[in-house]
Amino acid sequence: MAKYLKDFPSGPLDEYRRKASFDWKKLKLYLYSEDILEHQYNVYKELQQYPIFLHESQQMTSLDEQRKLAAKQMIYLNKLESLTDANIFSNPQLPIINIKILIHLNPSTAVKRSISFGMFPSVIQSLGTDRHNSYLAGSFTGDILGAYCLTEFGHGSNAKSIQTVATYDRNTKEFILNSPSFEAAKCWAGNLGQTATHAVVYAQLITPDGVNHSLHPFLVKVRDPETYLPYPGVIVGDMGEKIGLNGVDNGFVMFNNYRIPRSQLLNRTADVAEDGTYLTRLKDPSKRYGASLGALSVGRVMIVGICAAYAVQALTIALRYAAVRKQFGPEGDDEISILEYQSHQHRLIPYLSVAYVLDLFSNYLGTVQIQVLIEAMSGDSNAADLGLELHAISSSSKPLAGWLVRDAVQECRESCAGHGYLKAAGLGDIRNNNDANCTYEGENHILIQQTSNWLLKFWPLILKGEKIKFPLKSVDFLTDAQQILKTKFSFNSFEDVMQPKNIIHMYQWLVCFLLKASYEKYETLANVKKLDSFWAKNESQVFYLKNLAIVYIQHFIIQRIYLTALAAQDITIKNILTKILSLYGVWTLEKYLTIFYQGDYASDSRLINFIQEAILTLCKDLKDDTVALVDVIAPPDFLLKSVLGQSDGMVYKHLQNAMFETPGAMSRTNWWKDIRNWKSKL
Amino acid sequence: MAKYLKDFPSGPLDEYRRKASFDWKKLKLYLYSEDILEHQYNVYKELQQYPIFLHESQQMTSLDEQRKLAAKQMIYLNKLESLTDANIFSNPQLPIINIKILIHLNPSTAVKRSISFGMFPSVIQSLGTDRHNSYLAGSFTGDILGAYCLTEFGHGSNAKSIQTVATYDRNTKEFILNSPSFEAAKCWAGNLGQTATHAVVYAQLITPDGVNHSLHPFLVKVRDPETYLPYPGVIVGDMGEKIGLNGVDNGFVMFNNYRIPRSQLLNRTADVAEDGTYLTRLKDPSKRYGASLGALSVGRVMIVGICAAYAVQALTIALRYAAVRKQFGPEGDDEISILEYQSHQHRLIPYLSVAYVLDLFSNYLGTVQIQVLIEAMSGDSNAADLGLELHAISSSSKPLAGWLVRDAVQECRESCAGHGYLKAAGLGDIRNNNDANCTYEGENHILIQQTSNWLLKFWPLILKGEKIKFPLKSVDFLTDAQQILKTKFSFNSFEDVMQPKNIIHMYQWLVCFLLKASYEKYETLANVKKLDSFWAKNESQVFYLKNLAIVYIQHFIIQRIYLTALAAQDITIKNILTKILSLYGVWTLEKYLTIFYQGDYASDSRLINFIQEAILTLCKDLKDDTVALVDVIAPPDFLLKSVLGQSDGMVYKHLQNAMFETPGAMSRTNWWKDIRNWKSKL
Repeated sequence: MAKYLKDFPSGPLDEYRRKASFDWKKLKLYLYSEDILEHQYNVYKELQQYPIFLHESQQMTSLDEQRKLAAKQMIYLNKLESLTDANIFSNPQLPIINIKILIHLNPSTAVKRSISFGMFPSVIQSLGTDRHNSYLAGSFTGDILGAYCLTEFGHGSNAKSIQTVATYDRNTKEFILNSPSFEAAKCWAGNLGQTATHAVVYAQLITPDGVNHSLHPFLVKVRDPETYLPYPGVIVGDMGEKIGLNGVDNGFVMFNNYRIPRSQLLNRTADVAEDGTYLTRLKDPSKRYGASLGALSVGRVMIVGICAAYAVQALTIALRYAAVRKQFGPEGDDEISILEYQSHQHRLIPYLSVAYVLDLFSNYLGTVQIQVLIEAMSGDSNAADLGLELHAISSSSKPLAGWLVRDAVQECRESCAGHGYLKAAGLGDIRNNNDANCTYEGENHILIQQTSNWLLKFWPLILKGEKIKFPLKSVDFLTDAQQILKTKFSFNSFEDVMQPKNIIHMYQWLVCFLLKASYEKYETLANVKKLDSFWAKNESQVFYLKNLAIVYIQHFIIQRIYLTALAAQDITIKNILTKILSLYGVWTLEKYLTIFYQGDYASDSRLINFIQEAILTLCKDLKDDTVALVDVIAPPDFLLKSVLGQSDGMVYKHLQNAMFETPGAMSRTNWWKDIRNWKSKL
Repeated sequence: MAKYLKDFPSGPLDEYRRKASFDWKKLKLYLYSEDILEHQYNVYKELQQYPIFLHESQQMTSLDEQRKLAAKQMIYLNKLESLTDANIFSNPQLPIINIKILIHLNPSTAVKRSISFGMFPSVIQSLGTDRHNSYLAGSFTGDILGAYCLTEFGHGSNAKSIQTVATYDRNTKEFILNSPSFEAAKCWAGNLGQTATHAVVYAQLITPDGVNHSLHPFLVKVRDPETYLPYPGVIVGDMGEKIGLNGVDNGFVMFNNYRIPRSQLLNRTADVAEDGTYLTRLKDPSKRYGASLGALSVGRVMIVGICAAYAVQALTIALRYAAVRKQFGPEGDDEISILEYQSHQHRLIPYLSVAYVLDLFSNYLGTVQIQVLIEAMSGDSNAADLGLELHAISSSSKPLAGWLVRDAVQECRESCAGHGYLKAAGLGDIRNNNDANCTYEGENHILIQQTSNWLLKFWPLILKGEKIKFPLKSVDFLTDAQQILKTKFSFNSFEDVMQPKNIIHMYQWLVCFLLKASYEKYETLANVKKLDSFWAKNESQVFYLKNLAIVYIQHFIIQRIYLTALAAQDITIKNILTKILSLYGVWTLEKYLTIFYQGDYASDSRLINFIQEAILTLCKDLKDDTVALVDVIAPPDFLLKSVLGQSDGMVYKHLQNAMFETPGAMSRTNWWKDIRNWKSKL
């Protein structure tokens, strides 16, 4: 055990480490299990054996250097036994744990690897048939590097209006791929810019009778693996620099009468016979479409984990720096750590609770996702409801995690003030990489409607008194919605308000209230104001459906993490986890307080006063535990890569090294003589 | 007139332009005056004559290329007659207008120029005496390029604990500069990394009698202008890559027994005689300290303008793209512009109001700042109160603007979804550059305490019934605070709630309530809980003093802009400005609604319901005006530099050009063969 949980080097963080109310090793073991700690230890050890994984340039590297690094790291990761041996049947948490390690290593590498060795083969597996087995094998070994092409420049979220066409030619038994315009060019496909040889391309399938059978997936060769040159008829290119994730070569592709064999249609659910007859195994085309996009759901769960990994990294940096950094103090006394300031505690400690809650929740969600995949394979009768519920949970937890972590990283960045603006602090890169999480795999505002639309269907059932029951229990409390809505705020102290069970009750009230209000809003717009359903739904989003989906997922997350806290045997562990959860609860509730007044749950100042007092009390209570809490979740120093956040707390030594060791930092520019010339031309 | 206000090219934006409720040229003329429009026109015209200002690389350029570009642009700007002729006495708005143009040109260039040709000479002017005239002359011509060194690695906001020392040696009549450790190295000084020859350095002045006379400014030669090599005893270097503003060469410097002549002390307020006697003209050293730091106040006002410029740029991009971009639509109909969606309107249109309000307010504030400087020079008796009030206004409007624009830019970035993540969209750079505004020139949370501490002093005066009166009228309503606090929410409709005069009333109630509550909180902590004043102040920040400073400045801003709306003769102009201000008012008020319940101003759901209805109604009302509103404030296309936001609305053409024209976008990497080699080493 000892080798997985090493003591940290002594230094300026000792003082806070000594003050902790709990043993960080016990908490770490409780949260992650010995299996996972051993696995992490093995991966870290192997990573450190290859110089390519220790690359740590603080200076700007060119786009090409970043691309090459990510491509090489992606391939080298296959050399790690600890990663390839990972058996999801023995521990279904491993995929989510692995993605977090790789995000800390290099987010671009993690994304490229997920596409090449995760998404691409899994799409072939789920949408293809035996005839595609050789591609599947090639993609596992890396002989084939794949990309996934759905989005077009002119069409993102609305996949149904995709313009790329695949017309079947019965004479040659080929599909002819065409991009009618630049707007129809596929774009944003990771790996497609420079490294992919193959791509799964979605196109409108048109049979010789002229019928458009809507979107279908095709397996398309885009570059000759021998020369890496595109095939004639394929115009493929790189999308250039982005805000972040610049190691990922996102690409675009256009097809100009590009012919592919009939067998390249991924034909698990539908096929075209040699004579051009369209064959489908599913009666309802919308179900087939749903099934083909369903393969994407894994991505959202992974993103919740990715967000958690960024939050952990950012909070580690900001809180260690806050403990070391001293500024001002009482008249005549020494300067004090900025962590001692109420304002600084309030800026960072709630986000530490976010990092904890999302880290634990994403580990749970990753496990559920694997179970769903396994159940789906085994044809479990439970699978449909479980899949539906997970869809609602992932479609709301991905946006919530994206937004919370966006704000967490930003607060961490600002809380490190000037030095937080250095690239060497690491916070800018975290922000720029995390940024994509808000808009890919479903733009957040559009994605979250998947959840709110699902929830809306429950209100008529509630009115009918029906029992609501789903496998993960995220909506079961709605059975009692009408009872819950009759309750009023009746807590007598801030201590009451911050009890997790009371926080859960308040969130249940919020979900019920917003569900009823959203339903009634929609019905009024549709039936009284006679808007069609599209516009009625549109005009029920702000203040209603969007909030509904968020409070629903907040309630579920808190309910889940409460079980983790309750299950702890050690009282110090139970206490610290309860405090973290309480803070997460009251701090997130604060954003919805007005709704309690809107719905007549509260009418005087007690609710607000108690919530504010609970937040400040919990921040102050947790202040001396923050450094130890960070130690539990922090990645090792070689992955953290921040001058402000190393585990030894030697901030100024690391800053000094970063300043002095940067090539050219102390030499003249090679244009120093020009400065006078520019001026003399006046 | 016509040449300053050209029609935009016809294209996909025509439809919305036709729908506008007002004439964009009339509004522009009303807001900026013909003088300013002519000035902008002249600057734009001159900029376009030099290729160095038309530089537009969408691809990653190296740190060195960015540095060289900013340095060259900074010097070439001196060639522009329109900039050098600008006469602040004829129009005191010119400096703030100019900084906005330069921010749109290149933020790094703008910052470097502000230091070299603004801050550095003005510091010499205000803190030096005749003996420094040659330096002043040199800094105006650019023979001397200066930097400003206050902050040290270990000490930022708390300037009093700066560690650099200047010990006077009466034998040689020199000061000896020393940096006792790396923590004492000066850092973050713009221009110091590569281009500065001179620096103003703050150090603890120690006379031969061993007395430390606290911080004083020295004019220090750091590099030989002939060779650009540092002088012996000076260790000067570049801080390397940052999150943004990478054209600015922020530097650090350490002194190792570096001797400078006695005359290099900037000795307007204090001097050391040849024999080492300390001489001061001010009796109170804290006043002298305040006076020497006072030269910094201009910076905050400029930052409010800089934030406004970023907001204008980001909203231009996001709203033009939202008008062009189509996605989904009612069943069977064409796809509709995403601007038609309630959720998208609510995401962007309130931030358009932020861009307008901050743009107008910063122009006002820039004008006041110049007046303050002029009055201070002329010894006006009004100057002290005006200076104090401006200090409170700038210390709260800079944080407010930094935060609002941070959120505005982020929302714009996310609202452009995938394509917003491209560097070519321009939003990432705006965010990364704006980011510094939250932490430099006073970290926001610390700076804002300047305002709250000032406000706190009024409560005892209010209790005594004293009249409160300041030149800019930002606090005059506090005279009636006790009356205001007796009012209750009594509006009967959302139309009432969104009247600017009612919004102003509600903000006044908020300021009074938070002032009283903060004062009482502080007094309880100090007198009942017996905390010393440092800790009592510390524990009154969250929910009290921080909110107090923000609602104070929000009230002042709204009050100011209301005057602008009221003064419009043309009814269409008055209407559109009133709507923008109303939206800004109700949307910002929404964040403080709970306080109205906390303070018993409201107790039922009407307040919340009216505010929500007002926000949604105003967003919908303004929807068809947004494109024309953007046209009024947008910079010209050559400064906007975004594929998504050009005035012709041809988003996909510009995207296509960006994709196809990027060097190397469509060719193989030069490491394509390595991909197999990496793998074969398995």
